[in-house]
Amino acid sequence: MEKLSEDQIDKKLAKLDGWKYSKNAIHTSFQFENFKDAFTVMTRIAFEAEAQQHHPNWGNVYNELEISLSTHDADGVTEKDFKLAQAIEEIIEAG
Amino acid sequence: MEKLSEDQIDKKLAKLDGWKYSKNAIHTSFQFENFKDAFTVMTRIAFEAEAQQHHPNWGNVYNELEISLSTHDADGVTEKDFKLAQAIEEIIEAG
Repeated sequence: MEKLSEDQIDKKLAKLDGWKYSKNAIHTSFQFENFKDAFTVMTRIAFEAEAQQHHPNWGNVYNELEISLSTHDADGVTEKDFKLAQAIEEIIEAG
Repeated sequence: MEKLSEDQIDKKLAKLDGWKYSKNAIHTSFQFENFKDAFTVMTRIAFEAEAQQHHPNWGNVYNELEISLSTHDADGVTEKDFKLAQAIEEIIEAG
């Protein structure tokens, strides 16, 4: 899986909602009503990540969720990250 | 819920396994076989945290889990944090 250029990343980010590129990864954050809602979404994302065999770097405090995606083997952002980002967007929109 | 002194925290930490105090919080980390195992434990912890109405500041990357506990309202570590830490220890030991 090939590392994308910053130009390629910018074009792909334009198709997502609220993601930013920095430090060789793409990042987003979400705020929910409470912990239960945050963890419910995390669980949906966990199943999707496991199915894609590509996993997020993420952190949660109460109703806040921060997610960073990068591809370790490529030392940067690849199509894998955008595939998972797209799935996360769909989970959030469905939630 | 009253903020504990560093002496009180040290005594309580001695009864736990692998937790450290720094920056007004207690911290630990765990490593699992894979993401699924890590998230399974996170789910158990999430139910316990919700039951206690006291939630962790935590982050996960693949098989690694980092947890910090503090009590926002007390601006430090309280009995609530040690109660949740104890429950987390039990979940880990049972896992």
